[in-house]
Amino acid sequence: MQETFDLKLYLAEQKREVEAALESAFPAPTGLQRSVIEAARYSLFAGGKRLRPILCLTAAAVVGGSSKALMPAACALEMIHTYSLIHDDLPAMDNDDYRRGQLTNHKVYGEAIAILAGDALLTEAFELMARTRDIPEQSPDRVLKAIRILVKAAGYRGMIGGQVIDLECENLETDMATVEYMHIHKTGALLSASLEIGALLGGGSPEQTSCLKRYGHHFGLAFQITDDLLDVEGDAAEMGKQPGSDVARNKKTYPALLGLARSKESAREHVEQALHQLAAFGRAAEPLRALARYLLIRRA
Amino acid sequence: MQETFDLKLYLAEQKREVEAALESAFPAPTGLQRSVIEAARYSLFAGGKRLRPILCLTAAAVVGGSSKALMPAACALEMIHTYSLIHDDLPAMDNDDYRRGQLTNHKVYGEAIAILAGDALLTEAFELMARTRDIPEQSPDRVLKAIRILVKAAGYRGMIGGQVIDLECENLETDMATVEYMHIHKTGALLSASLEIGALLGGGSPEQTSCLKRYGHHFGLAFQITDDLLDVEGDAAEMGKQPGSDVARNKKTYPALLGLARSKESAREHVEQALHQLAAFGRAAEPLRALARYLLIRRA
Repeated sequence: MQETFDLKLYLAEQKREVEAALESAFPAPTGLQRSVIEAARYSLFAGGKRLRPILCLTAAAVVGGSSKALMPAACALEMIHTYSLIHDDLPAMDNDDYRRGQLTNHKVYGEAIAILAGDALLTEAFELMARTRDIPEQSPDRVLKAIRILVKAAGYRGMIGGQVIDLECENLETDMATVEYMHIHKTGALLSASLEIGALLGGGSPEQTSCLKRYGHHFGLAFQITDDLLDVEGDAAEMGKQPGSDVARNKKTYPALLGLARSKESAREHVEQALHQLAAFGRAAEPLRALARYLLIRRA
Repeated sequence: MQETFDLKLYLAEQKREVEAALESAFPAPTGLQRSVIEAARYSLFAGGKRLRPILCLTAAAVVGGSSKALMPAACALEMIHTYSLIHDDLPAMDNDDYRRGQLTNHKVYGEAIAILAGDALLTEAFELMARTRDIPEQSPDRVLKAIRILVKAAGYRGMIGGQVIDLECENLETDMATVEYMHIHKTGALLSASLEIGALLGGGSPEQTSCLKRYGHHFGLAFQITDDLLDVEGDAAEMGKQPGSDVARNKKTYPALLGLARSKESAREHVEQALHQLAAFGRAAEPLRALARYLLIRRA
């Protein structure tokens, strides 16, 4: 008989380990520069789910690598994600006062420090990527390859490109293909890279790495669709933000473009395709299977 | 009899080569993301002196390395410098409408795109650093070391830290030591890293690399002092900006804190110390000697 995998416990344990590593990855504020470090840490410890680091560490474990040794790369991914939230919340961008129920970075530290805190997190992420060289028997060329994967996923060919498309489409009539293209770049690229980097640095074969990267692609789309659905159907207390805010801003969401039923169907299809990528992996991939299935019943 | 070294010709030639490399390093704008690429290119080709790339390439040549092979690293340094100018000019920071006689990035593309263009340049700089691996016989570990040097110089431990100190000191009484500490971080760190990275990736010994890094430290301070002096004594047409703007903003400059005579003396001392670091190098260091001496007679 198969044991039931306890996703909630797994995520809580992984989260705790990631947060302990982030504590030492980004130093305590001292010196004349302390305000920017304090601001970076404010957002770094503002209650994130640590999804990207957990995906990275889990991918490493799936291919038989040591997930502990990959912790610096996992932290780098969270730092990139955090910097993007700080900059996206700025008045010139989405102009958000709250995120996860807390004041956004610029509301606490001012815009100048918020911009610089984002810049500092983005910059330092590459120090942490380089540190994965210290894993015993790690190949420096693999580390350089992982750095290039991260650049592509985070830069104008990935996340930044997606944010640009999002900004420019806000007041345009946009079709489903453009919206999906935007999501693949804005959130999918970094999610997918988290798995690819974990698999690569964990010593996975090119085939294993490709499967996990594709899992990330479908997981990312399912994640986005269910996020949009939550905005329509979700509960403010569980989400830490008001539902309906996407509609109010005229954001092009899946439910708005496809309707509720077809959006749910599309989410289910992407979850199935994500699971399909894991067919060749054994029990170590159980957390990824559980995570994908969880998207279909998520409440926050 | 010693030939006279033609600095002006050398800088013009180097600048042309750097700009040709930047052309292909950052692609032509296409696709839905084109506005951010266009914005990044606008500032990348807004008439910079290309000082950091030239220092990097020259340091490589001084230690006998191929400066052509180091071009991606040189471009990375210019991209980091350019991103910092775009973000520094933002309304939330220095709020500048013009730079080098042209409209600043956000005045042309809006704040959101300017922030993202800066982020894109910063991110992509690490792709270019990683590409220096393609130099024949380059050690991937040396490339990773160079990446870590760049992070330290550009991040909160360097340039970003300096900008934070500059922002926070604007309305405070500040002593000379704090101002110098600010400059060492804000401009000195990246100048110094340009030489260090060039020497390291060019195959220099640790001693040679240290000397060139120290040259960069003194060059950077002399550069800053003479920059402050130009603001007092310079000519608007040659500088492409109004002199006196530092005084108007209550910026803590060397002349304001030390007086003109002692500022000039300090610049001369740093130039001498920079030259002293080059004592062990032969004719290949002539461009660096000429550059340091030039600071004492610069008009723009």
